[in-house]
Formats: sequence, C-alpha cells, structure tokens
Amino acid sequence: MDKKHIEVCLTPEQIHHFDLSGKIVVVTDVLRATSCMVTGLAHGVDSIIPVATLEECQAYQLKGYLAAAERGGRQVEGFDLGNSPFQYMNPDLKGKSVVVSTTNGTQAITKSMQARSILIGAFLNLSAVAKHLIFSDKDVVIHCSGWKGLFSMEDTLFAGALLDKLRLTHSFESDAALMALTMYQQAKSDVSAFIHKANHAQRLSRFNISKDIDFCCKLDEYSVVPQLAGREIRVSQ
Amino acid sequence: MDKKHIEVCLTPEQIHHFDLSGKIVVVTDVLRATSCMVTGLAHGVDSIIPVATLEECQAYQLKGYLAAAERGGRQVEGFDLGNSPFQYMNPDLKGKSVVVSTTNGTQAITKSMQARSILIGAFLNLSAVAKHLIFSDKDVVIHCSGWKGLFSMEDTLFAGALLDKLRLTHSFESDAALMALTMYQQAKSDVSAFIHKANHAQRLSRFNISKDIDFCCKLDEYSVVPQLAGREIRVSQ
Repeated sequence: MDKKHIEVCLTPEQIHHFDLSGKIVVVTDVLRATSCMVTGLAHGVDSIIPVATLEECQAYQLKGYLAAAERGGRQVEGFDLGNSPFQYMNPDLKGKSVVVSTTNGTQAITKSMQARSILIGAFLNLSAVAKHLIFSDKDVVIHCSGWKGLFSMEDTLFAGALLDKLRLTHSFESDAALMALTMYQQAKSDVSAFIHKANHAQRLSRFNISKDIDFCCKLDEYSVVPQLAGREIRVSQ
Repeated sequence: MDKKHIEVCLTPEQIHHFDLSGKIVVVTDVLRATSCMVTGLAHGVDSIIPVATLEECQAYQLKGYLAAAERGGRQVEGFDLGNSPFQYMNPDLKGKSVVVSTTNGTQAITKSMQARSILIGAFLNLSAVAKHLIFSDKDVVIHCSGWKGLFSMEDTLFAGALLDKLRLTHSFESDAALMALTMYQQAKSDVSAFIHKANHAQRLSRFNISKDIDFCCKLDEYSVVPQLAGREIRVSQ
C-alpha cells in the first residue's frame, strides 16, 4: 500500500500555500486552546463551538451558551471561562456546549474549513489522533496555530511528535516536517522543560500558569479524538 | 554594556511582524542567491543590483548591464548568468556591475528596505558578518529568504550558525531563534549532509547542482561583507 502524505504548516499565515481539499487537517494549539478542547470533551462536555471573534462569542453567550474567551493569554472579562484546561474538568460542564474564541487556536480552525475533516490535536491525545490517521486513507496537513502569526515551539514539537508516530504509514519530505521531527527528537526526553524555555511559555508564565503548561505537555492523558462536524467539535465515534 | 537584540524571520511573508527601523537586517538565501553575491564580490565584481522582477532585470540588460536571472532553480533564457556561484568566479566579471533577480533572495532584500542597513550573509562569509555585527551597536534581524514563502532548512541553519557566534554580544529569545540555534547545533558536524537531505536541495538536485550545494555550505571561504548602498550591493569597507 502506498504511504499517505503528510505536510506541516507552521503558522495560519502560511496555510494558503497548502491545498486542504480532500485532506484531514489536524489543528493544534498546545498552549492552550486545543489542550482545553481535548480536556473538556474527555470530561464530558457535549460539544465545543469555535468562533473567531469576541462578538460572535458574546452573541452565543446571550443565547444561553457557556462562553470561553481568551486574548493575549488572559480570560476576557465578562466570559464564563478562560483558557485553562483545569477549568474544563468542572463537572458542571458535563453535557453542555461551550463556545470558544482564543487568540490563535480558533483562528487556525476557521482557516482550515476547506479540509475534508478537521481534527483537534494536543499532546494530551497524541496517540489517539495518530491511530485515527493510521486507519484513515486520507493525506494529512498538521496546522500549527503558532503565536499571532509567528512560529511557536510547542506546536512545532507536537507536529514532530505526531510525525514520529506516523513514519511507517505516512511520507513527508518538506523542510518544515524535517525540522519539526528533528526538534522533537531533540526535545522528547523532556518536552515540558523544552517548552518552558520557549518564548510563548515564558510570556504565559507571567500569568502564573506554569501548572497549565505542565499539564498540556502530558502525553496521552486522554483517548478522545475531537472532530469538527458542522459548526461543532465533538468526540469522533 | 547591554547586549544587542537579535531576531529571526523565517520567511519574507512574515517580515511584516518585525520592526526593521534602526536595525541591521542580514538577508540570507544560502541556496543560492546570497552565496552567489558573496562569491562574486569576493572575486572582484564591483557591485550587484538586486531587482524583484524579470522585467526590471531585462531593462538593465538593455542598458548594457550584465544580467543574472533565476526562477524555480534554473537560469532564465536570455540572461547572461544564472544562480551558480561558480559563474561568479569568472574573471570577466571583475570591476563590472551585475543586475540580479532570483526566486527568493532578491525578494527578501526588497522587503527589507526599512532597515538602517542591509547586509548579505551566507555560510561563505559567516564569520565576517558576525564580526561586523559584534562591532556595531545596532540590533539585528536575520531575514531568511525561504522557498516561495515557506520556511527553508538551509537559511534557518545559517541563522542558527550566526546566532551561535553572537551569544556573548547579542540576546535572543524568540521561538524562531531558539529553533534555528537548536537545529544548527544538531546539524553542525556536517551542515552539508543535513542540507542535502532538505527539501530545497532535493528539488535543486534535479538540476544537477550538487557541486553548487557543497560549495554554498563551505564556512568562511570569503571575508567580504556585502552591504546595500542605495540600489547597489558593494563590499562594506
């Protein structure tokens, strides 16, 4: 059987170079949007609705939805939740829908709409996502959310970790993929330490979220594979 | 004395995120535009005039200038030179001006015009560029040309090599800089082998330029520091 092909897009600003049609796009925003989504859905949240703007987020909130909004690393005033995975473990969220808008992660999702399907990836569900891709016959693009248009270390390391699991079934040759894999091999003995050194984590550390960062670096905490269906992200069956 | 600051821009598509004013920009396009410029100027070319379009290049040619043009790795028909550093060693070029338009490198130069000064860097003149930056009091942006808007391995490795030489005098903390330095440390025992594995080199290998690639990976072959002055690149005195 021919290997499937896999590409890596390092920031949403470069996604226009990739042809997404017919492909599976794995969106990642390790710190912290996709880590929160994975955590929430694993803890019984029914669905997550990603929206690009705070206005859309507020409109849903006025209709009675729970609304989560983060900008620049902080929870936006007036919303029910921010961007910490621990907030998504709250039993009160079970069976509910949560509307989410974040600086980078939800932007990457809204820019991936041409894909055949969109999966949500993080270190927390790495193996589950890899398994899903291995059993699919579709080519893949890993879409890193980055930081305000720029490259980010933690998302690139996630891309490298996923490539590392897909070597037998997928081919890849772009410089971005080679770089992501090499970086992951360099970092894998202690991903968390490497990410703490990175700029985004240092920026976030001002908000006292070191515990969040440690949690987001945990491998395979959950086995859910969140997938976009219509406007909602739900656990793929 | 405070350390000067240094940033890394991985592709010209991201340069709008960087404030270049008052700074030195080091433009690099290892395969092969800036390697050619360094080689030509070291071999006695008087000046190099970078232009973005083939039309501009041709207009200069009609005025009697020597004209070099490359697109997608090949010399464009009707021009005097392509993009091989060996062509720039020709004694007939001594004292002449050469007008150059290439796929990536000259685009990066034209997008750096807001800088206080623009230097041309390659592995071939790595230490000379580093020395120039150490003796200057200005902050620095390393502008990687990449490949058609995307990240490229060889330019990122050059950025890492330059950062490695500037640790004592310059500070850097962006994820792009951390990544470039880590990649270089991984590759430095055999930069050429690493670059041959990369995608751009594999694409170029179809044009039978393996010798060019080996040459462009040589460290410190020349001590010239080309600098843009007005419209022309000349050896900085």
